[in-house]
Amino acid sequence: MKIIIAGAGAMGSRFGLMLHQAKNDVILIDGWQEHIDTIKEYGLQANFNGEEVTEMIPIYHQSDISSVEFSADLVILFTKAMQLDGMMQSIKNMVGEKTKVLCLLNGIGHEDVIKKYVPLSNILLGNTMWTAGLEGPGKAKLFGNGSIDLQNLGNEGKESADEVIAVLNDAKLNAKYSDNILSSIYKKACVNGTMNGLCTILDSNMADFGETDVADVIVESIVSEFAQVAEKENATLDIDAVLAQIKSCYNRETIGLHHPSMYQDLMINNRLTEIDFINGAIVRKGEVYGIETPYCSFLTQLVHAKEQIMKAK
Amino acid sequence: MKIIIAGAGAMGSRFGLMLHQAKNDVILIDGWQEHIDTIKEYGLQANFNGEEVTEMIPIYHQSDISSVEFSADLVILFTKAMQLDGMMQSIKNMVGEKTKVLCLLNGIGHEDVIKKYVPLSNILLGNTMWTAGLEGPGKAKLFGNGSIDLQNLGNEGKESADEVIAVLNDAKLNAKYSDNILSSIYKKACVNGTMNGLCTILDSNMADFGETDVADVIVESIVSEFAQVAEKENATLDIDAVLAQIKSCYNRETIGLHHPSMYQDLMINNRLTEIDFINGAIVRKGEVYGIETPYCSFLTQLVHAKEQIMKAK
Repeated sequence: MKIIIAGAGAMGSRFGLMLHQAKNDVILIDGWQEHIDTIKEYGLQANFNGEEVTEMIPIYHQSDISSVEFSADLVILFTKAMQLDGMMQSIKNMVGEKTKVLCLLNGIGHEDVIKKYVPLSNILLGNTMWTAGLEGPGKAKLFGNGSIDLQNLGNEGKESADEVIAVLNDAKLNAKYSDNILSSIYKKACVNGTMNGLCTILDSNMADFGETDVADVIVESIVSEFAQVAEKENATLDIDAVLAQIKSCYNRETIGLHHPSMYQDLMINNRLTEIDFINGAIVRKGEVYGIETPYCSFLTQLVHAKEQIMKAK
Repeated sequence: MKIIIAGAGAMGSRFGLMLHQAKNDVILIDGWQEHIDTIKEYGLQANFNGEEVTEMIPIYHQSDISSVEFSADLVILFTKAMQLDGMMQSIKNMVGEKTKVLCLLNGIGHEDVIKKYVPLSNILLGNTMWTAGLEGPGKAKLFGNGSIDLQNLGNEGKESADEVIAVLNDAKLNAKYSDNILSSIYKKACVNGTMNGLCTILDSNMADFGETDVADVIVESIVSEFAQVAEKENATLDIDAVLAQIKSCYNRETIGLHHPSMYQDLMINNRLTEIDFINGAIVRKGEVYGIETPYCSFLTQLVHAKEQIMKAK
């Protein structure tokens, strides 16, 4: 299968590598020049469950693909949320009538961007439990196991995804069809929509926040806004299960002493955050559905204020 | 006049000093042992508009006044907001049927505490533009000019405050009666209710916050909640004037580079804040009046989370 990995960071590198190992015709597209140059020269290198591997995979800079001829059967989207629209614009000439587009970004509402370029019947919305890291440009660290749930957004249902699922499974990526992908996506978004913004604004790890006597009321207020919006989108959220998953982040013995990814982005690396695609998406959808979302609004505004005060880029 | 200064920090020292200079019978009550010991030994010292002055004024520790006989004509309250109830409890034996109690604390809703101990007809609620600083225990720095607006909360109006106003003016404290003290108090609370909590949570000075593109929408959301509550209390708030005063805090040429007092309390001195008596008071009053106050709620909760994460005391 001819596959574009659009966004070849840590996760894109994992998917590109595993699909290339399984003999697919893969190209990578990214925007980080040093990463691209390293992969062009040395191939994509990875510590893959303890073994050093190298795959020679073509890689292109996103701004330099107008002359590339590649009619993709499948595009797997792994950009940062704020780069999604630009990426879709860049690759639109490689996306034909039959190209399936699988979106595995964190956050919610990405389908609203993608459907400007691709009919709903070709969009697969997914949620993955795979993890990945980058040790430096061109060098990934890929440990452990994972899975993918995905769903077609059009009316054609499971059949339209069969071929993509087969290709993913042939590459040992453990994909399966879901009839309820939005519920998984909203559940994950609730964890990100609380831990990410709150730990960033409070300059805190998850355990220290979770042990304050206001953690419950803040988290419940935010999750309630997510749940009201999710309900309008026919995504059922089991609020008790969501709250239990959030509380599991406070555990000092496991991940409680860690800072979530948004904290890393802004407070460590001085980068703009994805808040507009997590809490900010709930605000936009709340406006459409007539749902009040003051906690998500205020948290989104505070994170933007913090980005600007820190002059993040 | 027999006057108790209840809370003899910077502002209490100013009022105690000026009223004592004007030949009133003044005692100071405070809870900071080193400050008390220094004043007992050396008197209250001050750089008073450039001149070094010393006034020998009796001072007592708040926990050690049960045996002090002093029938006050006037109590001037200058505690931290969270210490008000404890102070009223400590001094209640010195407060008789005719004792006037003048409250000059920042924040709103203090009358709800005071009226547990004193009839409304004896409570004077005030707002002062005087400033003061402490250079160390027993040593104040008192520069510039100021004024006091005050109002009686009972039905007796201006006459019940005449004597107190005369005594304050005799000490050059520039007091005058107001028919609308709640409006001044709410206006000042709007400035504190935005700059204090926001700059604390964002770890920012006022100018850096004010220059973000979300400053206006955040400030307007918070001020709107204050204004709705103020209206229920018959305190008219000129929202444009309030917003203009808040924006004047962003000016880098004047005070924009400063951090507000709550930032100093928590981020510099690791002390608990007065948030419950500013934004938190709006939340409590909003519940009584059936007004939604999500921005004040969330900001109050965030500041409490920050206090606990920093283990403030």
